[in-house]
Amino acid sequence: MNTNGGRRRAAKPPTIHDVAREAGVSRGTVSRVLNGGHYVSPAARESVEAAISRTGYVVNRHARSLITGRSDSVAFLLTEPQERFFEDPNFNVLLRACTQSLADHDIPLLLMIAGTEAERRRITRYITAGHVDGVLLVSSHTGDPAADQLRDAGVPLVACGKPIGHTGKVSYVAADDRDGAHDMVRHLYASGRRRIATITGPLDTPGGIDRLAGYRQALAETGLEADERLVATGDYTRVGGEHAAERLLAAVPDMDALFVASDLMAQGALTALKRANRRVPEDIAVGGFDDSPAALATTPELTTIRQPWDRIASEMVRLLLAQIGGADTSAVILPTELVSRGTV
Amino acid sequence: MNTNGGRRRAAKPPTIHDVAREAGVSRGTVSRVLNGGHYVSPAARESVEAAISRTGYVVNRHARSLITGRSDSVAFLLTEPQERFFEDPNFNVLLRACTQSLADHDIPLLLMIAGTEAERRRITRYITAGHVDGVLLVSSHTGDPAADQLRDAGVPLVACGKPIGHTGKVSYVAADDRDGAHDMVRHLYASGRRRIATITGPLDTPGGIDRLAGYRQALAETGLEADERLVATGDYTRVGGEHAAERLLAAVPDMDALFVASDLMAQGALTALKRANRRVPEDIAVGGFDDSPAALATTPELTTIRQPWDRIASEMVRLLLAQIGGADTSAVILPTELVSRGTV
Repeated sequence: MNTNGGRRRAAKPPTIHDVAREAGVSRGTVSRVLNGGHYVSPAARESVEAAISRTGYVVNRHARSLITGRSDSVAFLLTEPQERFFEDPNFNVLLRACTQSLADHDIPLLLMIAGTEAERRRITRYITAGHVDGVLLVSSHTGDPAADQLRDAGVPLVACGKPIGHTGKVSYVAADDRDGAHDMVRHLYASGRRRIATITGPLDTPGGIDRLAGYRQALAETGLEADERLVATGDYTRVGGEHAAERLLAAVPDMDALFVASDLMAQGALTALKRANRRVPEDIAVGGFDDSPAALATTPELTTIRQPWDRIASEMVRLLLAQIGGADTSAVILPTELVSRGTV
Repeated sequence: MNTNGGRRRAAKPPTIHDVAREAGVSRGTVSRVLNGGHYVSPAARESVEAAISRTGYVVNRHARSLITGRSDSVAFLLTEPQERFFEDPNFNVLLRACTQSLADHDIPLLLMIAGTEAERRRITRYITAGHVDGVLLVSSHTGDPAADQLRDAGVPLVACGKPIGHTGKVSYVAADDRDGAHDMVRHLYASGRRRIATITGPLDTPGGIDRLAGYRQALAETGLEADERLVATGDYTRVGGEHAAERLLAAVPDMDALFVASDLMAQGALTALKRANRRVPEDIAVGGFDDSPAALATTPELTTIRQPWDRIASEMVRLLLAQIGGADTSAVILPTELVSRGTV
């Protein structure tokens, strides 16, 4: 019955009883499969799913969504331009970890990229229409309206990184940016460096703000001069790191250490230092932040601060599933770790 | 009314009349917005969307999906491991072009990666539940069951590249692989080369099979010996290209040209040739396939065969929207073009 693409044209859609009969199971088993597949044996689930496919019972899953308000799926929403997604290996690592955490709950992940205003409008329309149960929001900049719009529409939401201006209203999971930056600058100081510069992230992002705060705190503790020429603002891209390092080389030619607020920018900074014939770490020590695959792509390999991506992902998924189940918003801050390689 | 996340708990959901009243427009305007937003002014659409958000009218969009069978969204489904997606710049280019083509129709694109059997099961369950209107399938390997499952479930579907074993049953858009490969090998021959080797794609992919066929056809036309030692099988990865080139260097040390069936593999092959102290193009000419960003990342830049990604994407979207509208399956083959740079 109804096997030839008839799903979209069927006048008389099959019922849950048809599926149960076709699968040779009880109506209750079909219902449990439809409600997420928990407490059902894999064999029973497979036969129910096969029966659903054969009978064309799909349209009624819309009716189920209408009743339960559940789609059994989660969005990974990136509000950055698509190029950033492919350039920065952090996204690949975080996406894989989130996919894996959701897989443990048998929930599919849908990746949505909203890098422009029009894309954001289309994607939020889709999400607020109920096609996903919740959103893992990966974004960084202040004034990103996606968090507000989704929250106002009652969509369960967990951000990666502290959502500036939304603290307390939006759940989030973040590494301890300030503490990690502080540790790296103390490490540079302990290696004997005294003119320690920094390349920050964008200053409308939590990583930009808090890593700079950790840098300043460490300078204050050690009594080093907080010379504003030592601070260059970057944009989390490789070429942005390269340009920021060039500006620092011109402004403070005597700098002997550089803390860069992301590994990808550090990769660019190393290119600029090499071109200027500065040896790393002999003439200048370089510390990164992330411990992303970019840290292993440099020569020498980058000393950096590890963000615990697997834990960030699993905590994001845990908070989101709890919120879908009715829990309140909450925040989790995870500790970082210094990874010593060849650049300090 | 009902603004505090009440969407999922509302006992008495708001009606389309509530939305119209809240937006200050007619019920017909609301209906047109709900049916895709065509023939509605941007201002009216915005006020309707704001009213939908304020009233919490979202659950009823499930009801609309139930009636119209439309979600107004399209999936970009990649049945490859996530790593491949980030490594091969072709996917970035194709994704951007598809996103742009769909944007012209105000349709959001959802990216789904099904690299494992379990991921494929979860994703097809989501798709066949009606959460998307159609699928742009980006996959390559024979025996990928996603195409069959989606087609059997009546989901509109267009593949990128000829789906082996499904020709005539699944719509697809492809570059002319055989013709492009043939042109490149004739170009290598015209440059005076007589020991022309090739690194193929996987031989269960259309690009693997058809580009090898084009290579063989050109050898036959020119009367060159079809020595099987000249053929090494690759896997479309950079490191796979590097290893295949090493095998060729050992098996046929007198080769003077190399046609590589993807730019990314060619990038790896150039690394192996450099390590073996073969000058390109003096000692050995190298031709790629794709004209992806990888072709510009090599020194010298890669002479290659351009796949018309923008046209591939816009044709995939055109066929898919037609199919959603009821059209039959069809196929489009697009011509390639030789791009001459520094390696031949």
